Amino acid sequence: MENTAVETRPHRVVIVGGGFGGLYAAKALGKTKRVEITLIDKRNFHLFQPLLYQVATGKLSPGDISSPLRAILSRYRRVKVLMDTAIDIDPRQQQVKLNHTTLPYDTLIVATGVSHHYFGNDQWAEAAPGLKTLEDALEMRKRIFGAFEAAEKESDPERRRAWLTFVVVGGGPTGVELAGALAELAFHTLKDEFHDIDTTETRILLLEGLDRVLPPYPADLSAKAADSLAELGVTVRTQSLVTDIADDVVTVRQGDQTEQVRAKTILWAAGVKASAMGKVLAARAGAQLDRSGRVMVNPDLSLPEQPNIFVVGDLAHFAHQDNGADSSEKKPLPGVAPVAMQQGAYIARLVQRRLQGKTVPPFHYDDVGSLAVIGHHAAVVTMGQLKVWGFPAWLIWIFVHIYYLIEFDNKLLVMIQWLWNYFTRKGGARLITWEESRLDEPVAVEQELQPVPERTAGELKTPIIADS
Amino acid sequence: MENTAVETRPHRVVIVGGGFGGLYAAKALGKTKRVEITLIDKRNFHLFQPLLYQVATGKLSPGDISSPLRAILSRYRRVKVLMDTAIDIDPRQQQVKLNHTTLPYDTLIVATGVSHHYFGNDQWAEAAPGLKTLEDALEMRKRIFGAFEAAEKESDPERRRAWLTFVVVGGGPTGVELAGALAELAFHTLKDEFHDIDTTETRILLLEGLDRVLPPYPADLSAKAADSLAELGVTVRTQSLVTDIADDVVTVRQGDQTEQVRAKTILWAAGVKASAMGKVLAARAGAQLDRSGRVMVNPDLSLPEQPNIFVVGDLAHFAHQDNGADSSEKKPLPGVAPVAMQQGAYIARLVQRRLQGKTVPPFHYDDVGSLAVIGHHAAVVTMGQLKVWGFPAWLIWIFVHIYYLIEFDNKLLVMIQWLWNYFTRKGGARLITWEESRLDEPVAVEQELQPVPERTAGELKTPIIADS
Repeated sequence: MENTAVETRPHRVVIVGGGFGGLYAAKALGKTKRVEITLIDKRNFHLFQPLLYQVATGKLSPGDISSPLRAILSRYRRVKVLMDTAIDIDPRQQQVKLNHTTLPYDTLIVATGVSHHYFGNDQWAEAAPGLKTLEDALEMRKRIFGAFEAAEKESDPERRRAWLTFVVVGGGPTGVELAGALAELAFHTLKDEFHDIDTTETRILLLEGLDRVLPPYPADLSAKAADSLAELGVTVRTQSLVTDIADDVVTVRQGDQTEQVRAKTILWAAGVKASAMGKVLAARAGAQLDRSGRVMVNPDLSLPEQPNIFVVGDLAHFAHQDNGADSSEKKPLPGVAPVAMQQGAYIARLVQRRLQGKTVPPFHYDDVGSLAVIGHHAAVVTMGQLKVWGFPAWLIWIFVHIYYLIEFDNKLLVMIQWLWNYFTRKGGARLITWEESRLDEPVAVEQELQPVPERTAGELKTPIIADS
Repeated sequence: MENTAVETRPHRVVIVGGGFGGLYAAKALGKTKRVEITLIDKRNFHLFQPLLYQVATGKLSPGDISSPLRAILSRYRRVKVLMDTAIDIDPRQQQVKLNHTTLPYDTLIVATGVSHHYFGNDQWAEAAPGLKTLEDALEMRKRIFGAFEAAEKESDPERRRAWLTFVVVGGGPTGVELAGALAELAFHTLKDEFHDIDTTETRILLLEGLDRVLPPYPADLSAKAADSLAELGVTVRTQSLVTDIADDVVTVRQGDQTEQVRAKTILWAAGVKASAMGKVLAARAGAQLDRSGRVMVNPDLSLPEQPNIFVVGDLAHFAHQDNGADSSEKKPLPGVAPVAMQQGAYIARLVQRRLQGKTVPPFHYDDVGSLAVIGHHAAVVTMGQLKVWGFPAWLIWIFVHIYYLIEFDNKLLVMIQWLWNYFTRKGGARLITWEESRLDEPVAVEQELQPVPERTAGELKTPIIADS
């Protein structure tokens, strides 16, 4: 690799971000002659984000939806993986500044995605965690299962009710999937596992600001989704805005009415903002950003004035004619895996053509449709004009996900195990880990110690804490 | 449950600890009439500890070797699971004090196990983590895979060598299994995945204070194990004592020679000490402790003067006639799963007989032999007089573990996946998670920023950090 790099100076492609966009670009370019690719990610693994909510609800383990980038790309000798963090870009010198080094590039592909966003209420983050990283998912998992354990121990009915109340903020795909999975847990998986609480008394509230769940979907599918959620036992509240989150209390405004909901577990599935790399591109390369910080790109996904810097995936704002309701207005493509995959592959083809002195037509998104799963055995699917819901949609959903999951990494057996869990309604990985669990609040042992039997009083020096 | 408890006052058994000992006692008692069992654990899951090193080396996910206690015991209506921490005992009032409540008991079974021990050098803990909990395993996993990533980025040959040097302290089963798995990783799994380093240059040092690895095993099997380790590429050093660990340097004394080894990754597999519950029993119930803090128990596993308090598993010091070399001296039973399982089941039978006014003979350990696996396809096994090594031993090992893992929780497919990974030498879950990874040291961005292009200088307010 290094040697050939010396003999004939190859075209250096630097890809920032190992998500769907970056990974597809790397794979598509990986066997191109006279090209040398470096894929940078601060993690050593690719995350199959569409199933992240399954980790948050204990159905899958982190390892089930993650694959080491080095393992995925080891077949591609021209691709070098670097675990590092990009902190700056210099378009003049065509360099990317990383934490540990600086890389020159001929073509730069930025695919750093988005993170969740609290609309200027970042103080809500602690009380209402979002779901973008594995750590987020494990934090949610800890809170969800920790809440049931705490409820089992809670004698005060008010507080017990608060432990058994779950609020999901945001009725998009992630919110719908989380709420559905929570209902599965409370009303089926955990039903017979507790003695002092009845988990079927669990209250699951799904809050959506607009007038229906799954706003990007056709109205009738949104209705189907709402029905399925209600059947599962989820309380869906549309046109409901969260105005405050504090002390386990969510303040919800619906029209001109305001309600306060006591809930110990609040999950954030509303709103995303572009990763900070967008700001870097704006500051260094004059990129324009939209309201949520995504980078406005040319029809070929490059930046204005920067023909060799491309943005793909969730970070890119690619305006396109929407086939939906009013095809007059131009909308950005949705932040879903298929868009990122197609954009990554497109850039790869573009680079290959350019090296041959040729050009490519503008990027066109080949709409493969949208999928959202609603708890157990139900989903909604749109494919062009086709609309499917209920169990058939769920089958399509499961097939698509198995297909992609296996494409990255031979996880066939993981998926079979998972299907097994699904049909048996069994939880796969319901672990509450990490000492700092909310359930391990330190207690003043001295006060609580029983009077010491005289016989041994002398032996007791320090308060005794034992593991169990 | 609660109702019957009111009608006829049942015999209340409290079990502290959901490991092999506690869990087997709970299952064996779970269907006994007129008995009410409460199993206390500060975790919500049972951990299959014999495979913990597989999580530490990225072969298995935490979820693969853990099962929710509530799920395992949901069939047993008489068993109540409580996620809490025992902090004290009052034998007079027959009560166990927990963080959140106090439980009365008629029979108390303590099975809180052991943790690792630094022989009075607790300051080594940070530099040389041990392997007892899932958190320990994930910390090791992070350090092991992080070390290869750091080496890939390291230009200084000295430091690179330190990143590629792994020291395992302790030549018992855990140390042998860790060292073997590390060799697997370095010389096979990761071989083709890096560009700037050759992972086959990795140095793996296994340090044992006694004159051979696997000291509890017959000498010839220890020799076989040492051979297999050498074949795998592990450097075995016996009669080598660690005298200091500091600044990524391990000081080793062999005879009267002292050597300093530069290693960024040091794994502790030497020595265990009893969980703090042992001290509680000593202070409150007059129990005698051995040098490593284990509780000396009667032939029926009860405490002297406390016929209704029992200690099982690793925490118990049960002196027995050793079938080994000199059968004159009495040794404590080894801290292995079969001992704990049999002791848990024994106490269950004892309680059942007592309720019928009958007695049971003293506990006798039915030796099922010992197993230790050495990397890929090799192991050593003793079963009574039978000794097996190499691949046949490995097959026995894999069969035994699959059998037990499936017994707890239907993890058949997990095991098949794992076997698949084993034979393909593929890593299953090699994730480096958690922001605080040693690879994400904060950098002084201001200093490192390129000069800002004039055009946009004005726009740059704060230093820019981007995710990648």
